[in-house]
Amino acid sequence: MYNLLKGKKGIIFGALDSKSIAWKVAERAHEEGAKFVLTNAPVALRLGTISELAEKTGSQVIPADATSIMDLENLVEQAMEILGGKIDFVLHSIGMSVNVRRGNHYTNQDYNFTKTGWDVSALSFHRVMSVLYKKEAMNEWGSIVALTYMAAQRVFPDYNDMADNKAYLESVARSFGYFFSRDHKVRVNTISQSPTVTTAGSGVKGFDGFVSFAEKMSPLGNASALECADYTISLFSDLTKMVTLQNLFHDGGFSNMGISTAIMDEFMKKDEKIEEPKKEIKE
Amino acid sequence: MYNLLKGKKGIIFGALDSKSIAWKVAERAHEEGAKFVLTNAPVALRLGTISELAEKTGSQVIPADATSIMDLENLVEQAMEILGGKIDFVLHSIGMSVNVRRGNHYTNQDYNFTKTGWDVSALSFHRVMSVLYKKEAMNEWGSIVALTYMAAQRVFPDYNDMADNKAYLESVARSFGYFFSRDHKVRVNTISQSPTVTTAGSGVKGFDGFVSFAEKMSPLGNASALECADYTISLFSDLTKMVTLQNLFHDGGFSNMGISTAIMDEFMKKDEKIEEPKKEIKE
Amino acid sequence: MYNLLKGKKGIIFGALDSKSIAWKVAERAHEEGAKFVLTNAPVALRLGTISELAEKTGSQVIPADATSIMDLENLVEQAMEILGGKIDFVLHSIGMSVNVRRGNHYTNQDYNFTKTGWDVSALSFHRVMSVLYKKEAMNEWGSIVALTYMAAQRVFPDYNDMADNKAYLESVARSFGYFFSRDHKVRVNTISQSPTVTTAGSGVKGFDGFVSFAEKMSPLGNASALECADYTISLFSDLTKMVTLQNLFHDGGFSNMGISTAIMDEFMKKDEKIEEPKKEIKE
Amino acid sequence: MYNLLKGKKGIIFGALDSKSIAWKVAERAHEEGAKFVLTNAPVALRLGTISELAEKTGSQVIPADATSIMDLENLVEQAMEILGGKIDFVLHSIGMSVNVRRGNHYTNQDYNFTKTGWDVSALSFHRVMSVLYKKEAMNEWGSIVALTYMAAQRVFPDYNDMADNKAYLESVARSFGYFFSRDHKVRVNTISQSPTVTTAGSGVKGFDGFVSFAEKMSPLGNASALECADYTISLFSDLTKMVTLQNLFHDGGFSNMGISTAIMDEFMKKDEKIEEPKKEIKE
Repeated sequence: MYNLLKGKKGIIFGALDSKSIAWKVAERAHEEGAKFVLTNAPVALRLGTISELAEKTGSQVIPADATSIMDLENLVEQAMEILGGKIDFVLHSIGMSVNVRRGNHYTNQDYNFTKTGWDVSALSFHRVMSVLYKKEAMNEWGSIVALTYMAAQRVFPDYNDMADNKAYLESVARSFGYFFSRDHKVRVNTISQSPTVTTAGSGVKGFDGFVSFAEKMSPLGNASALECADYTISLFSDLTKMVTLQNLFHDGGFSNMGISTAIMDEFMKKDEKIEEPKKEIKE
Repeated sequence: MYNLLKGKKGIIFGALDSKSIAWKVAERAHEEGAKFVLTNAPVALRLGTISELAEKTGSQVIPADATSIMDLENLVEQAMEILGGKIDFVLHSIGMSVNVRRGNHYTNQDYNFTKTGWDVSALSFHRVMSVLYKKEAMNEWGSIVALTYMAAQRVFPDYNDMADNKAYLESVARSFGYFFSRDHKVRVNTISQSPTVTTAGSGVKGFDGFVSFAEKMSPLGNASALECADYTISLFSDLTKMVTLQNLFHDGGFSNMGISTAIMDEFMKKDEKIEEPKKEIKE
Repeated sequence: MYNLLKGKKGIIFGALDSKSIAWKVAERAHEEGAKFVLTNAPVALRLGTISELAEKTGSQVIPADATSIMDLENLVEQAMEILGGKIDFVLHSIGMSVNVRRGNHYTNQDYNFTKTGWDVSALSFHRVMSVLYKKEAMNEWGSIVALTYMAAQRVFPDYNDMADNKAYLESVARSFGYFFSRDHKVRVNTISQSPTVTTAGSGVKGFDGFVSFAEKMSPLGNASALECADYTISLFSDLTKMVTLQNLFHDGGFSNMGISTAIMDEFMKKDEKIEEPKKEIKE
Repeated sequence: MYNLLKGKKGIIFGALDSKSIAWKVAERAHEEGAKFVLTNAPVALRLGTISELAEKTGSQVIPADATSIMDLENLVEQAMEILGGKIDFVLHSIGMSVNVRRGNHYTNQDYNFTKTGWDVSALSFHRVMSVLYKKEAMNEWGSIVALTYMAAQRVFPDYNDMADNKAYLESVARSFGYFFSRDHKVRVNTISQSPTVTTAGSGVKGFDGFVSFAEKMSPLGNASALECADYTISLFSDLTKMVTLQNLFHDGGFSNMGISTAIMDEFMKKDEKIEEPKKEIKE
């Protein structure tokens, strides 16, 4: 729509199906004139519908397990060959908790699952950047973005060990971002997005209720996957060259709310409604 | 360059001269297809060169003292008349400390000066939003941005009472932003910019030294006024519709640095250099 | 109980009646072996029951309007004379919003009221420290504490302009705290307390509902005035000598919660209850 | 000195030798009337001098590898038997990075080392709490504290992967702290301490220079290990019952500094000194 990414080359991780934020980012990046390769873990490639996205955006899909340095090295090399040069932008949208999937409570984790989740969801971001950094695969003033969630700062009980993984991920963004910014002029940031109904997100217990709570708490309501893609585009564009090491909330204002009038009204109103039957019984 | 603000209408406060961030924002907004009015306090209009900017961007200048509700009401009404409709974006770039100008130390303020500085620098933002809100002068999905500085969060001893004014300003952004977002779908954010050599900024004691320190601390160096304008454009554009109540650091990474290798190297190297004379004396 | 403040001398602002946090601090400081003077604005002295507290703790009451430098100078001089030396601890517990009292909405403030509220609630803290600093009235390793509220960071719509005042107050704690710590080894911190049912607090609209919401959100429930006094004692004691420039949450965990299971359960349960009538109507 | 921990029972992890913060905590807890068991990894027990501390404080030492649930279960059971009841306070002071030890740069980690460091330094805290929680081994209003460092929030390039580990640790404090506070009334907090010259800390590259930088940046200077112990005691005491899920900076004010006059003076002064020779050469 604006040609914001004209001539830019990218790698987009994590587009599973059309609900994925990464999917929307790919569509929007395409509209803005970017070329990119799509990547996902082999198992996710089978489960999802990424070939449809590849066709739509004229992109190639390169399978890569983000826990494998070898896969990532192959991905980056192939991406540069396919795109014809160094990379300008990267989206990391990878997260998975085996404890959540298996229904283990946060206080009762299987630590092998914890390790796997951390490895896939958090350490993978270090690996991706490490490969890009060592291969000097990023152009100057390139932009790397990872998606995260506010459970890294505050307690959302059902988010389980993903909260700790996201805290680690955000720390990696700062720690590695320093070296990437200093040495290669590449900025690294995370976007902390509203709860978003994706195929991945729907695994979290009580997720729908929480989406509804967040909608009422946020003065602009929850941010959608498409809106997140728009915001990501702005961070890939040349308008944001000096933004680095930041965790950026894209959440309709949720992060800075103590309480909204909508939540308070519901909290109070319902108390009355619920108390009414009791009164009737007493009378 | 991208037509990001095509058809959008704005009000830009605080363009004094070509070094001003507001000046750069006006130039960039013009390039992006926006129409806007320029405004400043009558005294600033005399001191600066705003008519040059007005001519360049095809804009009208409407004098307004940001401490006067009457002036602001007149400004908003005239702006809507000139621009032919409601407002889409507003930049608040106003700050002034009489204590700084008069050389009063932070611990030894003249509280009348403190009040004036707070009134001009911080409460003015409430006044601007209050007039816009009551007149329902903003279009839905409009964007209001105020410029601030990290002294609102951390101590920069020479920044004096402007630190406290900026803390108040940022709080107003959240407090009023809630109502503006909820009621009119208008987002309100602040940009916390690198120390920038402007005519206003140069009044702060030891400013050049600090700019140099910040340059060495920030992995991308200090952000320039033009880069700040680019970032502001992104916040006025439709790419950032769901970002609200945020304080956004635009500072080359300074805000999340504990120490950089550049600062540490200098700190250590100089320690040696300074200690050398002592050794010579001993010998 | 522990003799934590044995031999220490203090000034306690803001004990209105036995519900006041400052009142509890005075009682606890007395138990811990401190000597202190009590102070409040003349009007508050008339409205409250401070003489009862003075008698109970063997303290003198010195009236002082915290917006008057002359009153504060007199207070500090008298306090040193009465207590026989320099001051070790100070509690600032002063806050008042005329806009709240008069029922003005945040977006529709009377700016003269705004100024008065800011002057009394926020700038007063600068004045108090300025008088103590210039008179060199604090002992080394003394401790200054002001009470604040999380509305300084996040939106609580009914907290009105007190949110902005508290943001300014917390900034003053950092800004002045730097000089006080550096020059006199005096630490300055703020305690951000749970919503507390005091005579002052009860003026805020919808306060009871919010207290109940916060109770359910906080894993330990809301902190009481007495618990706040205990915490304040720890900050006056020699156990916390190196804590300075901090804003310390004393809130049963509220500040780091995104959502609690108790709030979520209620939110979901009520949704069902409220939706039931609709279903009945449909049938 | 104050009997603050009279009758309280604790477990103290991580006292290697007399420089350790955990060592000072043990000494101070002993002075304050607590009984406790000491624990450390078998290898640390051999390297250090913990038996001296055990004798001095009348404590028993129970070896436990914090990566072994079995060891931790044994530790907690034995501790309750030895101390005659449930636990009131726990100190987690465990951290180790193999990448740091082996001199691997942050951007060039051996991920097996990364996993080991994360397992020992961060996940260990989850394990400790998990065992205490499941065994219901903590008394109500007990207190759990872990030591951390500000590299979890900001970049300190030489801190390497310990920065990310500390971010994970602090997240675990919040995530598990919620359940521990809600279910057992046990508070969980982290203390973010000044750089401290301990046997463990001295492994970090350029550490002495950084200690000197932090000393000049902090208005009260760096906090010592003994002062940290005092602060820890306050968090174990009944004065801080409602403080939970917090990360508490104990750092002489460093965390809220942008720049100090001492650092700025040195930065500017040395520039002159260093430039002098150049001038002489020119002349």
